[in-house]
Amino acid sequence: MNLILLSKNDFIEGTNSVRLKGRRLKHVTEVHRATSGDTLCVGVENDKIGTGAITCIDDTLLEMDIKLHQPPPEKLPLNLILALPRPKVLNRIILGAVSMGVQKIWLINASRVEKSYWQSPRLSDENLLHQSVLGLEQSKDTVLPSIIKKPLFKPFVEDELGEIIKGTTALVAHPVAENECPKEVTTPMSLAIGPEGGFIPYEIEKLKECGFTPVHLGERILRVESAIPALLGRLF
Amino acid sequence: MNLILLSKNDFIEGTNSVRLKGRRLKHVTEVHRATSGDTLCVGVENDKIGTGAITCIDDTLLEMDIKLHQPPPEKLPLNLILALPRPKVLNRIILGAVSMGVQKIWLINASRVEKSYWQSPRLSDENLLHQSVLGLEQSKDTVLPSIIKKPLFKPFVEDELGEIIKGTTALVAHPVAENECPKEVTTPMSLAIGPEGGFIPYEIEKLKECGFTPVHLGERILRVESAIPALLGRLF
Repeated sequence: MNLILLSKNDFIEGTNSVRLKGRRLKHVTEVHRATSGDTLCVGVENDKIGTGAITCIDDTLLEMDIKLHQPPPEKLPLNLILALPRPKVLNRIILGAVSMGVQKIWLINASRVEKSYWQSPRLSDENLLHQSVLGLEQSKDTVLPSIIKKPLFKPFVEDELGEIIKGTTALVAHPVAENECPKEVTTPMSLAIGPEGGFIPYEIEKLKECGFTPVHLGERILRVESAIPALLGRLF
Repeated sequence: MNLILLSKNDFIEGTNSVRLKGRRLKHVTEVHRATSGDTLCVGVENDKIGTGAITCIDDTLLEMDIKLHQPPPEKLPLNLILALPRPKVLNRIILGAVSMGVQKIWLINASRVEKSYWQSPRLSDENLLHQSVLGLEQSKDTVLPSIIKKPLFKPFVEDELGEIIKGTTALVAHPVAENECPKEVTTPMSLAIGPEGGFIPYEIEKLKECGFTPVHLGERILRVESAIPALLGRLF
């Protein structure tokens, strides 16, 4: 937690002070081991970042005086279209992508996405929000991403995706593609990443019809949790 | 498992056939759901990759005729010097780095590495080898990495690291560095990555004395498991 993310509700009405309990209090006492007078990096949800000077801290609550002076870091100019990952890795994929500045994520279906994944409690809005908050706290950001679930591949790709990727360079990561993934792009991007085992040929065809170019990342096939940061590191 | 990694011992003496049991058999029956006549991607430890044609498969064993025809993918020209990560993430960091072609890894101590991490069973040679094998199987590689443990920071940096990084461009990832991490390098690289919370100033100084240049990756602070693929995607 490199930044304590605050919501408007944390503020004591009419003041610049916040009062925190629960997870954030626990983290500040146990990990930061902060005491009264210490200053922490804070940010307000969808707003600026700044400092929080601790005026009071004990086992039950944390109070800080807040000064905000800086905009949050910029987001990546990217639409991330991601075949729904295994629930086991979903949390860290969302956290990792949000920490790198991904702002717009679509979780889509694909032939090799197991149906049961769509029933996972990890896919609840509450959990996706929690993982997003952890990603923002990691990377000192305040702006929540939008994460949209699209459990039907064909209508999403045929009816909605074209509009989403308009004005962007759209790539789909595909290990057997002819072209290598470009580096240091200068346009906004859309990036589609398949499930374990990849998109099937039909899905690649549909994405191509929609405007995506298949690209590979070399001979090596990476897990999705490595492929996303590797692609973002390469593109931006 | 995009490649079944074989050792010389798997071969039936004097033949090009292998006989497998255990983890690999289980994976081929349960995940690949392969049957007699199917062909799988295989590779021999520290040797070529090719195909294995299944001649016999049941619950107790798998036999394949092996043809090897292709060298494994190239490794990255990189020394990765990594402050020992939390045991909880060590496995996936090793697997991920190996899958991306990292061949030489040093796990080093640092002030913010908790002493208990060095006692973790995950740091056993056996587990590091297992994670490496999983990384090779993921990325269709056969060449095992070298992973060296250096539990004393100062003597390692003062007495050994200079020799290791000779002839390479040496960078240390440091969120508050002045310079941004370069892109698309053309020289062999050495890359040092700190623990959660980063290297302390003394450690950065020692690394600078040794020849490392501190570089940052932008305003965002990433977890080690995101930072490594992001840096590798950016550098190579």
